[in-house]
Amino acid sequence: MRYAVLGTGTVGRTVAERLVSLGHDVVLGTRDPAATLTRTGAAGTGAPAVPYAVWQAGHPRVGLATFAEAARTGEVLVNATGGRVSVEVLTAAGAEHLEGKVLVDLANPLDFSGGWPPVLDPANSDSLGELIQRTFPGARVVKTLNTMNCAVMVDPARVAGEHHVFLSGDDEEAKGSVRELLHSFGWPPASILDLGGIQTARGAEMLLPIWLTLMGRLGHADFNFHVQGA
Amino acid sequence: MRYAVLGTGTVGRTVAERLVSLGHDVVLGTRDPAATLTRTGAAGTGAPAVPYAVWQAGHPRVGLATFAEAARTGEVLVNATGGRVSVEVLTAAGAEHLEGKVLVDLANPLDFSGGWPPVLDPANSDSLGELIQRTFPGARVVKTLNTMNCAVMVDPARVAGEHHVFLSGDDEEAKGSVRELLHSFGWPPASILDLGGIQTARGAEMLLPIWLTLMGRLGHADFNFHVQGA
Repeated sequence: MRYAVLGTGTVGRTVAERLVSLGHDVVLGTRDPAATLTRTGAAGTGAPAVPYAVWQAGHPRVGLATFAEAARTGEVLVNATGGRVSVEVLTAAGAEHLEGKVLVDLANPLDFSGGWPPVLDPANSDSLGELIQRTFPGARVVKTLNTMNCAVMVDPARVAGEHHVFLSGDDEEAKGSVRELLHSFGWPPASILDLGGIQTARGAEMLLPIWLTLMGRLGHADFNFHVQGA
Repeated sequence: MRYAVLGTGTVGRTVAERLVSLGHDVVLGTRDPAATLTRTGAAGTGAPAVPYAVWQAGHPRVGLATFAEAARTGEVLVNATGGRVSVEVLTAAGAEHLEGKVLVDLANPLDFSGGWPPVLDPANSDSLGELIQRTFPGARVVKTLNTMNCAVMVDPARVAGEHHVFLSGDDEEAKGSVRELLHSFGWPPASILDLGGIQTARGAEMLLPIWLTLMGRLGHADFNFHVQGA
């Protein structure tokens, strides 16, 4: 399968590396590939510590293209951008390149502009998953994996014991194909909990505040939610 | 210990019954005791199916008083009211009766006025726990148990396996005494996860949307969150 992973940050790189290891073709989408390749990982820029060019040298099978070019050639799209810029990025990718495709939305609309703790925007009566689905009605949006660290997303065995990954989406067939993808990442069938339609992304995204608190309290990110009794 | 449980709905009754079984003195607080005793449990009123008078006949050791009288005599207060009226109820209880006392806040500010799903108000940049603590600075507010069904609150063994109850509050001594209360309900020490100050009630309250979704999907309320890897 040919995947377009939008976003060259830690989440995008981690998912891309995993997809390549599973034999898929992967192109990372970015705003300006030339700028991404020359960007340093200087502290304070919000970029990962490892410059993209250094990372790419170690991952020669991952391609790099503009959002639009990546989305055009990708059969399945993965939104690994910051949730506050996701709609802008997907607009740049081009609605016509999203049409009919499964769009796996991993993002959370965390707004850090007011300091710590961040707030979610949208939230409560809306969600990023719904906003993306509304804005790009031709895309088959499946919200998943947003409730954990990216290392756990692609390697659930990092967390011992049973734990869950949630699915939200209006397209049952799209959810079925995302289920297959999750299996290939190492998620057992029983660990995948289908919440329902894309509106249920609200609840999944609203897990982020307690997730961030827990990360601070535990001092690590190798944890995940398990619904005991499910 | 003498407990005042504010709210005569299912949550208040369940907690009161459990406290009495543990040998505590318990008074349920209500707006108008005479009205509570004559109220029928008619469908559509939002009241539990069993009229209060019927329930009380089976629970003769649980007292009934006004919010203010209950709060005045209670050594520990439990907020088991609907979260959208909690501040009004606590105001009726009287700030002077909350002064210096541990206030266990079980409530969630769910607003059903816009239909299903309900939204939280406040949420995201505030929480009911914080709102109560700000409004009644003399109370020692501990948010806990709000992330599960009331039957599970007082009998965690209803859910097989390990699962967590969260604590949020600014007063460490108050959290310590609530920890003891939770132990007496059957929560093992390792199941109690202290999130931090009262601000962390945001994350705990924001679990409600996914909790409600899960209840709908699972068809029962005997489940609870476990933080695997904690």
